[in-house]
Amino acid sequence: MATKLAIIYYSATGTIDAMARRLAATAEAEGAEVRLRHVSEIAPREAIESNDAWKAHVDAVAGEPEATADDIVWADAVLFGTPTRFGNVASQLKQFLDTLSGPWSQGQLADKAYAGFTSSQTAHGGQETTLLALYNSVHHFGGVIVSPGYTDGLKFVDGNPYGVSHVTGATNDAPLGDAENNALDHLVRRVLRIGAVLAG
Amino acid sequence: MATKLAIIYYSATGTIDAMARRLAATAEAEGAEVRLRHVSEIAPREAIESNDAWKAHVDAVAGEPEATADDIVWADAVLFGTPTRFGNVASQLKQFLDTLSGPWSQGQLADKAYAGFTSSQTAHGGQETTLLALYNSVHHFGGVIVSPGYTDGLKFVDGNPYGVSHVTGATNDAPLGDAENNALDHLVRRVLRIGAVLAG
Amino acid sequence: MATKLAIIYYSATGTIDAMARRLAATAEAEGAEVRLRHVSEIAPREAIESNDAWKAHVDAVAGEPEATADDIVWADAVLFGTPTRFGNVASQLKQFLDTLSGPWSQGQLADKAYAGFTSSQTAHGGQETTLLALYNSVHHFGGVIVSPGYTDGLKFVDGNPYGVSHVTGATNDAPLGDAENNALDHLVRRVLRIGAVLAG
Amino acid sequence: MATKLAIIYYSATGTIDAMARRLAATAEAEGAEVRLRHVSEIAPREAIESNDAWKAHVDAVAGEPEATADDIVWADAVLFGTPTRFGNVASQLKQFLDTLSGPWSQGQLADKAYAGFTSSQTAHGGQETTLLALYNSVHHFGGVIVSPGYTDGLKFVDGNPYGVSHVTGATNDAPLGDAENNALDHLVRRVLRIGAVLAG
Repeated sequence: MATKLAIIYYSATGTIDAMARRLAATAEAEGAEVRLRHVSEIAPREAIESNDAWKAHVDAVAGEPEATADDIVWADAVLFGTPTRFGNVASQLKQFLDTLSGPWSQGQLADKAYAGFTSSQTAHGGQETTLLALYNSVHHFGGVIVSPGYTDGLKFVDGNPYGVSHVTGATNDAPLGDAENNALDHLVRRVLRIGAVLAG
Repeated sequence: MATKLAIIYYSATGTIDAMARRLAATAEAEGAEVRLRHVSEIAPREAIESNDAWKAHVDAVAGEPEATADDIVWADAVLFGTPTRFGNVASQLKQFLDTLSGPWSQGQLADKAYAGFTSSQTAHGGQETTLLALYNSVHHFGGVIVSPGYTDGLKFVDGNPYGVSHVTGATNDAPLGDAENNALDHLVRRVLRIGAVLAG
Repeated sequence: MATKLAIIYYSATGTIDAMARRLAATAEAEGAEVRLRHVSEIAPREAIESNDAWKAHVDAVAGEPEATADDIVWADAVLFGTPTRFGNVASQLKQFLDTLSGPWSQGQLADKAYAGFTSSQTAHGGQETTLLALYNSVHHFGGVIVSPGYTDGLKFVDGNPYGVSHVTGATNDAPLGDAENNALDHLVRRVLRIGAVLAG
Repeated sequence: MATKLAIIYYSATGTIDAMARRLAATAEAEGAEVRLRHVSEIAPREAIESNDAWKAHVDAVAGEPEATADDIVWADAVLFGTPTRFGNVASQLKQFLDTLSGPWSQGQLADKAYAGFTSSQTAHGGQETTLLALYNSVHHFGGVIVSPGYTDGLKFVDGNPYGVSHVTGATNDAPLGDAENNALDHLVRRVLRIGAVLAG
């Protein structure tokens, strides 16, 4: 039976969305069943309108399904993606997490494989801390945290043992390079493998 | 000139609100000028309606002013309050923090005294981690973090060096006791003192 | 084949030692093969001599084997125990972790089930933060972090989703109670179960 | 009166030592009184001997004074430096911190300005997490945490709001560049300024 992967993410201007789609494509090539789901946007419309890249991204995903609690309950493995916002998870993703108390109280979030991915403009402005703040919640879920560590030589290239991260630069638009794409592929194969084992 | 204190908080069922009001009363008794401001509620109305204590609290503060970025820009000292939500800041407070990029980019959040307070139902379910996740953002602001440590004998009673926290218990309604009230008084006096010194 | 569990711990005055022995006894009752190993003491002799409980404990474990890197390489599941020292792992345990770069560089620490246990005198003086600082290193190992969350009703009693912790009180000698013992039993059964699954 | 700065650091192969000396030189140029103090080496002699750069550094600082608790008690501002070791403070620095319970219990570590600096080989292998794990202890001290944030345009160049960090690269010998040196200068001026204000 195919391993079930939920990729739950928030993206404002498209970087996290690009990372999520890379993860989804690799997972599908590996034979996994994938739910790629963005979370609801809660920012004020005027904030979105003031940023062309943000507005374009909101319009681009408008027709796609939004994440629900059931996507996690269903999954064997879960990848959460969020840009950093002041060294922590974006409020949009946090808002989604905060709605999970129902399935949490029934143990439906536990014993799955979880990991995360993130991005920031500056080199050390949340690339590590955002992932650890995210994992605080996974601890509460009773999730099994499957961070990549340095479990492959390619992890010494992207260099993030806590998950996968991308530095978008001063103009916030640096595209993903080989280092990040390879690290994303490694991450998703790893959580699929361990998610499958945990699912029995 | 009076020291200016902003207390910015999110409260669902009233515990954090009670802590915030204690802080405000003590600060005013110390001669500070205080802005007590709750952040906007972003939870769906049906979630709120399903919980009597939550609904009652939303109604109770409906007429009070909501926090704005200017409240931080104005202040010499800032106290943030939030219940834990899965070991991290509630999305309502995070949503407010995420709107601060304008004043942040102009340096208007820096060089003030900051600390936090929180609550959780279980004894070790976010009493420490929520405060540290909150402080991630204060690091980004260039804020000066004035956690209480064990700078008074009473801190060995409430026992939280990272801020002040309260355990609300299985029914989520344990009232504040002397330990917490004393720790709140100590916290606010400490941030006022250091906030005043930083403000020159 | 029996699941292999390494319990690697530092204890000064005996609390962590008592927690470690409880974990070992429960694991053996579950049919696991257990290595119970304390790490080397690196504190100056005069510091140890100045504290009767510390000296007594050093003497008590003097004849027992000390932890080596091979104990982790050998294991399917690993439990690390340490008292908090200023909100972080005791230097004695950290010194042991810092010697693991050889097996780490060969991937020999990865893909095992890891969790932690701790104690502090005050209620919120490192019960959560010490475990998260410990897990920073497990992320680097490529370990699989199996924190307990609230995966059983008894976790709402001890109340620590990040691991198991004990508050030793002002005189640092409060004995383990049912809440902690039950939580320790739950923790070790959980890491054994997931460690066995990961080991194939 | 000159502001008193203690720079307490551990360095194995010299990177953190170079950062510490840059901080000291800038502080002295600013008129501060500086104590530059490395902590005791506790690694086994054979580990040190097996690494030429490590051995050379141990020999180079052999005649210099080692850090004592009094250096912190004396200071108005304190900068701690450590390489990352698996996402956390090196055991050598942690061992020093663990000896501070005497002055801590008398409140002698509180109300000073503290910040940190670190290095790692990989880009995101502890550049943020090591500093936050270090600050756990500063919270316990009742120290005032003066991280740099983005309080100057140059912080968008080195990119670390939690302190200053350097990526040493695959061969662990990348020298400090302008980005790091500028960030170190900014950090030390900032802690001196706030340390002086706190000292009255």
